[in-house]
Amino acid sequence: MTILKERPGLDHRLGASAELVTRRLDELLPEAAGPRGRVIEAMRYSALSGGKRLRPFLVIESARLFGLSEEAALNTAAAVEMIHCYSLIHDDLPAMDDSDLRRGHPTVHVRFDDATAVLAGDGLLTEAFAVLADLKTHGDAAVRCELIAGLAKASGAAGMVGGQMIDLSPERDRLDLTGITNLQELKTGALIAFSCKAGAILAQAGQAERQSLRDYAGKLGLAFQIVDDLLDSESTPEALGKPTGQDQAAGKATFVGQLGVAGARDMASGLVDQARRCLDIFGDRASILSQTATFVLERTR
Amino acid sequence: MTILKERPGLDHRLGASAELVTRRLDELLPEAAGPRGRVIEAMRYSALSGGKRLRPFLVIESARLFGLSEEAALNTAAAVEMIHCYSLIHDDLPAMDDSDLRRGHPTVHVRFDDATAVLAGDGLLTEAFAVLADLKTHGDAAVRCELIAGLAKASGAAGMVGGQMIDLSPERDRLDLTGITNLQELKTGALIAFSCKAGAILAQAGQAERQSLRDYAGKLGLAFQIVDDLLDSESTPEALGKPTGQDQAAGKATFVGQLGVAGARDMASGLVDQARRCLDIFGDRASILSQTATFVLERTR
Repeated sequence: MTILKERPGLDHRLGASAELVTRRLDELLPEAAGPRGRVIEAMRYSALSGGKRLRPFLVIESARLFGLSEEAALNTAAAVEMIHCYSLIHDDLPAMDDSDLRRGHPTVHVRFDDATAVLAGDGLLTEAFAVLADLKTHGDAAVRCELIAGLAKASGAAGMVGGQMIDLSPERDRLDLTGITNLQELKTGALIAFSCKAGAILAQAGQAERQSLRDYAGKLGLAFQIVDDLLDSESTPEALGKPTGQDQAAGKATFVGQLGVAGARDMASGLVDQARRCLDIFGDRASILSQTATFVLERTR
Repeated sequence: MTILKERPGLDHRLGASAELVTRRLDELLPEAAGPRGRVIEAMRYSALSGGKRLRPFLVIESARLFGLSEEAALNTAAAVEMIHCYSLIHDDLPAMDDSDLRRGHPTVHVRFDDATAVLAGDGLLTEAFAVLADLKTHGDAAVRCELIAGLAKASGAAGMVGGQMIDLSPERDRLDLTGITNLQELKTGALIAFSCKAGAILAQAGQAERQSLRDYAGKLGLAFQIVDDLLDSESTPEALGKPTGQDQAAGKATFVGQLGVAGARDMASGLVDQARRCLDIFGDRASILSQTATFVLERTR
C-alpha cells in the first residue's frame, strides 16, 4: 500500500491504459465466427486475458511525452501487445518452454491444442503488422513504415526470435553475466525498447530525445528481466499467474544465480536509478515514465 | 517435352526468375552466426531449398505487365516467398500435418527440431514485413503500406492461417465442393491472389486492370489447388518431393474425391481457360501470365 501512495498518478494511468488497450484489441481482432472461428477464439483468449500491459503503456506514455494523445498511440500500442501475446503463446508450447499457466489461466495450447496455439500465434503476429499498415488510422505512411520496420526488427531473428533461440540452446545453462545480459536484450529488451521508441517515431521526435528514450528503455528492460528472475525464484505461481522456479529447475543461468538475490536486487535498483536519470532532458513531462521505472522494480507479478 | 516446346519463353523465365529470387533471399536473410545462428540456419535452409517459386514469379510477372522491372518487384517477390516458406514450415510440424519431406528434403523440424521450426517460421514471417517496410528500396511509403496490409490480410486469420485452421478442423472431412473451394481460397488462394495483386500495387495500376488480375488470380489459385489434389492422388513422393496420398489417408474431402480424377482435371482445365481470358484486356503483354496458367495445369510437381 505504501507503493500505491508513492505513485498515485501512475497506478491510475496503468489501470486506465490497460483498459483502453484491451478495448482496442477487442475492436481490432475479428469476431470468432465461421469454420475458422477456433483460431480467432484462441487469438482473443490470449490477447484479452489481462496482463500488466506494460509494453502498450510504454508506447502510450512515450507518445504522450511529445504531446500525442492516447488515441494517436493506441493502435500502435495494441500492435505491440499482439506481438507480446504471440511470443507468449509460442514460448509456452510443449516444444518450447512447455508452460501450462499464463496470466493465471491455462495457456493457449492447454485450453485449445498445440496446432491452434501455433496458428493463433501466427495470426497475432500477422495482425500486428496489418494494424500498423492501416493508413485509415492516424499517421503518415513513412511513419507507419518506420514503425513496421522497427517492430519487425525487435521481434524477428535479430530480436525476440533470436533471443528465444539462445534461451533454448545447449549453451544456455553455461552463460555468464554478459551472456545472460545479451540474451535478455534480445528476448525481452528489444520489444520493451521498441515500445518506447514507437512513441518517438509517432511524434517524429528529434535525435537527442530519441537517444535519451533509447537509453531509458535499455536500462528499464534489463531491470525488468532481473526482477523477472527475482520473482521466478521468490514468488509463487498463485501470486505470479505463471509457473515459478522453472529456470532454476532447468539449470538455466539467471541474474539471481549469478549475483544472488541481494546482488540482483541491487543491480535492478541501480539500473532503475540510471533509467530515471535518462529522462532528465524531458523534465516534469517524464514523471509517469520515471514512476514506471520504479514500478518495474517494485512489481510483484 | 511437348510442353517445353509449347512455352519456350515461360520455361526460361521461370528458371531465371527462380534463380533471381533465391539470390535475393540469400542477400536479404541474415548470416547464420553467433548463438542465435541456429534459427537463421533453419530459416535459410527453408527459404533457399528450391521449390517452384511460383508466387514470386507471379509478383514479378504481374509487375512486368505494367512495365516494371524485375528489380523493382524482387524484394516484394522475396517477401511473398518468405511467407510461403514460413507457412510450409509450420504446416509440416508434428502438431499440424506432421510431414517429413518437403521439396525433396527433410522438413525443418526433422532436420532441426520442433522448437527451431516454430521459431524459424516466426522469423521468416517477421522478416517478410521487415523487407516490405524497408524504405531504402524502391517504392513510396504509401505503396509499401498497401503491400504490407495486403500481405497481412492474405496470410493472417482471414487468409492462410484461417484456411489452415479449417484444414485441421473436425468438420474438414465432411466438406462439400463449396466447403473445399472456400478452404482453398483461404489456405492457398489468398497468397496466390496477393502475388498477382502485388504487381498492380507496385505499379499503382488502375481499378479495371486490378480487377482483371484479381479474377485471373482467383481462377489460377483454384486450378492450382485442384492440380495439387490430382498430384497428391496420382504422383509419387520421389516425383513430387513431398509425401503423397496424405489427404486420402486422413479421410479429407478433396476435389478429386468429390469429382473423380477426370472431373477434377476437367474443372482445372476449364478454370485455366477462364483465367487466360481474364488477361484479354492486357493483350500480348500478358503472354507469360497466360502461359503460366497452362503451366499450373500441366505441372508435375
